Amino acid sequence: MTEHIVSSFDDDLNALSDKLAEMGGLCEKLVGESVEALIKRDIPLARRVIEWDRSIDRLQHEIEESSIRTIARRAPVAIDLREVIAALRIANDLERIGDLAKNIAKRVVALDGQFQPPKLAGGVAHIADLTLAQLKEVLDAYTRRDETRAVEVWNKDGEIDALYNSLFRELLTYMMEDPRNIGFCAHLLFCAKNIERIGDHATNIAETVYYVVNGAALTDDRPKADLMSAELGD
Amino acid sequence: MTEHIVSSFDDDLNALSDKLAEMGGLCEKLVGESVEALIKRDIPLARRVIEWDRSIDRLQHEIEESSIRTIARRAPVAIDLREVIAALRIANDLERIGDLAKNIAKRVVALDGQFQPPKLAGGVAHIADLTLAQLKEVLDAYTRRDETRAVEVWNKDGEIDALYNSLFRELLTYMMEDPRNIGFCAHLLFCAKNIERIGDHATNIAETVYYVVNGAALTDDRPKADLMSAELGD
Repeated sequence: MTEHIVSSFDDDLNALSDKLAEMGGLCEKLVGESVEALIKRDIPLARRVIEWDRSIDRLQHEIEESSIRTIARRAPVAIDLREVIAALRIANDLERIGDLAKNIAKRVVALDGQFQPPKLAGGVAHIADLTLAQLKEVLDAYTRRDETRAVEVWNKDGEIDALYNSLFRELLTYMMEDPRNIGFCAHLLFCAKNIERIGDHATNIAETVYYVVNGAALTDDRPKADLMSAELGD
Repeated sequence: MTEHIVSSFDDDLNALSDKLAEMGGLCEKLVGESVEALIKRDIPLARRVIEWDRSIDRLQHEIEESSIRTIARRAPVAIDLREVIAALRIANDLERIGDLAKNIAKRVVALDGQFQPPKLAGGVAHIADLTLAQLKEVLDAYTRRDETRAVEVWNKDGEIDALYNSLFRELLTYMMEDPRNIGFCAHLLFCAKNIERIGDHATNIAETVYYVVNGAALTDDRPKADLMSAELGD
């Protein structure tokens, strides 16, 4: 990062926003590519995702440093303070999303050569599409400070959870049908879980957008189907 | 939280330390109890863990607020700024540890009544013991600002990863031996993964302790066995 002297709080904030936009775009790319690598068994693509995740980590550190410098220098209050806290929180969620995409990519590398009927990975593609759409939507809601769209994303997280739960059962069925599926499906279980967790982070970002706009927290009750959530753990 | 006016930066810092100590103690308790609930199939204990996790979330919010207020009011630099950033980071890791313990507890509730030979959970207890010891050690290293002990914890994370990898294979073997084990073992796979991730957060805390004491980052290379890490994904 080139060190540049900012002249006002707004400049600080714009610099933060630019970095967050870059980080968000990179996260979308890596989530999409990690799943593409899984479906197509594309090892070189998976390796590129693993490599790119370092850029996300670097951006998160830069955003953390800039945010804290801004708080220390400008002592912002009210909406201004919320903007900086939001940048910190969103960068944190994006860093975790990048990590989860990297973890999927690492499993793709690990699975190279293992028995894997293509149909098994199909359900993962479906949940990944929905999750990626949620991620794009919430980043857009953040850019526009659009609370309504953020709440829509928040409300939709239950769909991802429901898809995950049905995928979990489907994968267990494949395992029971043929023991040769067990190793591959165990990895797919984790990939599916990682995608479901990416959805959770998109929901966190939705909560942060709501907080920036309203200065209050969205209700504590996540839009999860209680029973399913209790059944499948996290 | 009672709002109290602090008279100096040191008072701010002491208040932060107290809250972190409370949060750390609570995390140790919940990690231990979630695994105990799993091994003993103790549903009421699991439910208490799920309930207690809210206190950890509340403490994290309080620490976040206090840290940011301190940065805005005191504009600390050098070691003082590192102390506040460290509190923020450690609270973040502890919150995630609490979440992971809660997730294990939720699986215990979900597993109620399912076929589960006690021997299957044995390996989980072993990795949990090691992880809990690491967590206690790193929290102690933080309290004493003891960089040497922090580095010891950091170096030992490879042991947890190795145990996890062998447990992963063991659980797949049980699944292949008897399809009736598949559902239960799939949940155990996630419990084991959650414990391994608790170990990762202990390692993060070790890095933060190092950063507070030295003002520099521990090397970026995590003490993971590369091959295993590549093999099992995250």
